[in-house]
Amino acid sequence: MNSQNNNQGKNTDRKKLTPRTRQVRGISVKRNSERASSKPAGRRQADEPVRKTPVRIIPLGGLNEIGKNFTVIECSNDMFVIDCGLAFPDSEMLGVDIVIPDFTYIEKNIEKLRGVVITHGHEDHIGGLPYFLKKFNVPVYATRLTIGLIEGKLREHDLLGSAKLNVVVPRQTIRMGCMAVEFITVNHSIPDSVGMAIHTPAGVLIHTGDFKVDYTPIEGGIIDLPRFAELGNKGVLALMSDSTNSERPGYTVSERKVGDSLEMLFNKAEGKRIIIATFASNIHRVQQIINNAVSTGRKVAVSGRSMVNVISVGIELGYLKVPDGVLIDIDMITRYLPEQIVLVTTGSQGEPMSALSRMSMNEHRKVSITPNDFIIISANPIPGNEKLVTRVVNDLMKLGADVVYEKMYEVHVSGHACQEEQKLMLSITKPKFFIPVHGEFKHLMKHKQTAMSVGIPESNIIIGGIGDIIETDGVDMRIVGQAPAGRVLVDGLGVGDVGAIVLRDRKHLAEDGLIIAVATIDREAGEILAGPDVVSRGFVYVRESEELMNEAKELLYGTLQDCLDHNMHEWNAIKGKMKDNLSDFIFKKTKRSPMILPIIMEI
Amino acid sequence: MNSQNNNQGKNTDRKKLTPRTRQVRGISVKRNSERASSKPAGRRQADEPVRKTPVRIIPLGGLNEIGKNFTVIECSNDMFVIDCGLAFPDSEMLGVDIVIPDFTYIEKNIEKLRGVVITHGHEDHIGGLPYFLKKFNVPVYATRLTIGLIEGKLREHDLLGSAKLNVVVPRQTIRMGCMAVEFITVNHSIPDSVGMAIHTPAGVLIHTGDFKVDYTPIEGGIIDLPRFAELGNKGVLALMSDSTNSERPGYTVSERKVGDSLEMLFNKAEGKRIIIATFASNIHRVQQIINNAVSTGRKVAVSGRSMVNVISVGIELGYLKVPDGVLIDIDMITRYLPEQIVLVTTGSQGEPMSALSRMSMNEHRKVSITPNDFIIISANPIPGNEKLVTRVVNDLMKLGADVVYEKMYEVHVSGHACQEEQKLMLSITKPKFFIPVHGEFKHLMKHKQTAMSVGIPESNIIIGGIGDIIETDGVDMRIVGQAPAGRVLVDGLGVGDVGAIVLRDRKHLAEDGLIIAVATIDREAGEILAGPDVVSRGFVYVRESEELMNEAKELLYGTLQDCLDHNMHEWNAIKGKMKDNLSDFIFKKTKRSPMILPIIMEI
Repeated sequence: MNSQNNNQGKNTDRKKLTPRTRQVRGISVKRNSERASSKPAGRRQADEPVRKTPVRIIPLGGLNEIGKNFTVIECSNDMFVIDCGLAFPDSEMLGVDIVIPDFTYIEKNIEKLRGVVITHGHEDHIGGLPYFLKKFNVPVYATRLTIGLIEGKLREHDLLGSAKLNVVVPRQTIRMGCMAVEFITVNHSIPDSVGMAIHTPAGVLIHTGDFKVDYTPIEGGIIDLPRFAELGNKGVLALMSDSTNSERPGYTVSERKVGDSLEMLFNKAEGKRIIIATFASNIHRVQQIINNAVSTGRKVAVSGRSMVNVISVGIELGYLKVPDGVLIDIDMITRYLPEQIVLVTTGSQGEPMSALSRMSMNEHRKVSITPNDFIIISANPIPGNEKLVTRVVNDLMKLGADVVYEKMYEVHVSGHACQEEQKLMLSITKPKFFIPVHGEFKHLMKHKQTAMSVGIPESNIIIGGIGDIIETDGVDMRIVGQAPAGRVLVDGLGVGDVGAIVLRDRKHLAEDGLIIAVATIDREAGEILAGPDVVSRGFVYVRESEELMNEAKELLYGTLQDCLDHNMHEWNAIKGKMKDNLSDFIFKKTKRSPMILPIIMEI
Repeated sequence: MNSQNNNQGKNTDRKKLTPRTRQVRGISVKRNSERASSKPAGRRQADEPVRKTPVRIIPLGGLNEIGKNFTVIECSNDMFVIDCGLAFPDSEMLGVDIVIPDFTYIEKNIEKLRGVVITHGHEDHIGGLPYFLKKFNVPVYATRLTIGLIEGKLREHDLLGSAKLNVVVPRQTIRMGCMAVEFITVNHSIPDSVGMAIHTPAGVLIHTGDFKVDYTPIEGGIIDLPRFAELGNKGVLALMSDSTNSERPGYTVSERKVGDSLEMLFNKAEGKRIIIATFASNIHRVQQIINNAVSTGRKVAVSGRSMVNVISVGIELGYLKVPDGVLIDIDMITRYLPEQIVLVTTGSQGEPMSALSRMSMNEHRKVSITPNDFIIISANPIPGNEKLVTRVVNDLMKLGADVVYEKMYEVHVSGHACQEEQKLMLSITKPKFFIPVHGEFKHLMKHKQTAMSVGIPESNIIIGGIGDIIETDGVDMRIVGQAPAGRVLVDGLGVGDVGAIVLRDRKHLAEDGLIIAVATIDREAGEILAGPDVVSRGFVYVRESEELMNEAKELLYGTLQDCLDHNMHEWNAIKGKMKDNLSDFIFKKTKRSPMILPIIMEI
């Protein structure tokens, strides 16, 4: 399958695949139920548009949420997937490691599946792949760095040997059954990012992936606006475009600006050790740090597992250029003066186990923070991480370090398009239909408004949700049904075995702890042989609450004996009585509602 | 005590209490250990400054943290407290309701305690009072609205009958033993806020409370800059000033600006129902909402317990002016057209149980959101609440409502001074020593830099932490010791019975759930009479993990029987063996570490 599908694309006949739908006017997006009314009865009119083989767009992740991007494109007997990301758990998904999309729809249509195409190497676009490939080992297509990062991921899951990974280059086209996917360079906060043109019998669909417009990128070229414009001129049926920054007016600043800020800060930090925390995957950021280190005569050491990994992949694949002798092992930093060192580290989001967090708590084995440190957090807190970052900043400052954080000196720029860039993409691709993707509902709505401001009719815009089956025949576009969709929780080795009930119990245990009431009885004799004993965890500090616990035991003894005296035979009824009585007693005494677990053993 | 202490102040001889320390130059703040070096040996030089009876400033809350403001001022045999606030629990304080200061230092010095003075009626300044007054029923002094809000609080705790509450007015002075407290009007996001001048034998201390400078306040007058300046001219020994916004340059915008924005938005919302969420205590904000409702001919309904409470206290005490017939019961809103209604509600922070949250989830009993609703969230998310607010915004938008949130239209202004206002306060009070208060470490540090920029020497600035005993004799200021300080967790009726061990257990239970292994044995006979049974909660969905659970039982049976066969008599050893074996087994199978609780009953 691998060799059959790969590298066929460059000469794909685009004319055949390009739709001619631009001449159609005034066709509105309608839900299936309204469909009848848009079909005039009787035979076809002369000027009636030609309906083509329909194509389906089925987002199973990334809409109304941030993360786990996963979109199915389906046409006739063929289907492929764009991106296979993970999401990080919400605060109420207690104990959950990661969240992946629901793959049920793929399972049900497995015979159609031709492959997976990936836009770039961020976790929310590749993090679900190991779980996906374990089930469906189809070919994966992505650019070189992205494949490099996927390889690292699959190695950890012991899947590298079996996976069918294929490196593509921008402007290359890959056939996917009756469809073809063309990769198009975009700018983003990781090198080798691409958007896609999907050539289908119904017309051309464009998916931007995550993108921004950077006219002065560090490497890898400017977003391929000419190709997007060319497709637009030929006619684009539908655009799916990145909504992450749709609330922000204006343009996203060039990554190069960060280099300027770093240059200024390296001067400011004269005589001190510099520690910079940033996203490991932002190789261009790391490159600029290295450039500044070289020009100020500093050595560069690296801390944090993912930073070490990405930097070695980056160097190996040629995305990161480091002059000989600049990189040193972190164990060597003590042999240099502070002003001779730059330490690049993870932890820009205040993650409690990250290198920077451990430094802030004086728990890093190799780095001790002193007033001789100048620390730069080159990232903005992702929503939800604000307090974690603040804590790290406070703790680093308490150790005497200078700390540059948040918006103090433009040490971070976004990787996503703001409103003016979104307008640019809409204006040059001139899509008939528009589906804002990658964002919460508020982002999608704002992107819709932006699209309307550049002339896309409201009726041609679909705000979808995960599981929506969006179908277009080149004339109409509508939601025609629902695919199974949702979130699958991964906890340790378990995929999907933590669900609503387990989470509800974890929440209850987290808030009030539990009390176990255990007794051994001889039901025939109506006799309590042992107990009831009471064991609690996460409820009160028992040594200081002996009286309460003794009263609880007495109460339970009375309750249980009473049940036995009355010849109650239904275990659940006995347990229910013990639970209710203990629960009432505890609430009255403490205004708390711990989980209560009665256990009765019978001999 | 009440009548003795109250209303004595107006004629307090300020001359006697005002220090003359301005002429002293070049005295530095030193820790106690360095003290010796600042005391020249031998007898006093002619130009040596006069050391006065020392006064101690002991912050027991509000430094290096947001919330639970609580500061002890102590001199000779007298002591009083400024503010008695609560803090809201961090995300790791699972199940905790509120956090209050540690009152140990007060307990140990109870005979000195003369009273409590309160700057304003926010929770982080009055929320700890019920717990404090239960232990130490001393007089409380505050302005009228503040006392009104305290009364509501004490009523809930059944303390209203016994509390000694005293209303003061700005510029009034209250004697506290050898000290006296003078109340001074400031602007803030709740009416009747005051700062304080504390006249002590060592000199005048100023505590700003929470403040901003609003030259066009809605009511209650401009911050009493003339009095602060007058005190500054006479000589201020130390200033404690609000650091909340010390990272923000410039000035905080006037509350009146919000009124302008609301006027514009009321026009924009023509034909729709308006729903506005804001902080209940921001009575001036509510006043502006009411004014706009009146001028556009809308009725005002109120939703949310705290909003109803504060509005009724506000009206009763004359802080809120509502023309007759404007307020209607929420049950009446269905009798009006949408464009005739403004609904004022709680929930601006996305609190899950708040009125607005319930509306967003379609769970509010009296309000259903439709596309005919224009919703304004008149507040910024407090750090940590961003995701909660975003969820509410998304959900309200999904119901079709227009939602104005965050910085979209200046519908919120801060209640705290920005850098220029902080400079103003520093410049007119001209303190010898400066202690930035109310803020995390990064805020205090920034405020320190601001103070240095207007000429306060670094050596005269103390960045303190809770528990620091800061002492000044009018000449020096230094940290001379440590008082017990920390956070006391309140969970239901329990005050302080949830500590590190209980929280650690809750965290463990929250992340991995638990497995209980229970068996009944006859140790003499070396026989297992019942079990081992396995019960789990928050671990896996048991119905789908029967095999795992059965294997676990078998393993435990083997382990227990083996112990009995080998005549192990130490219960803890047997339990330890069961725990270790089960733990290893479960981790190998699932890569999870649930809490494991072995329980053995003996007959």
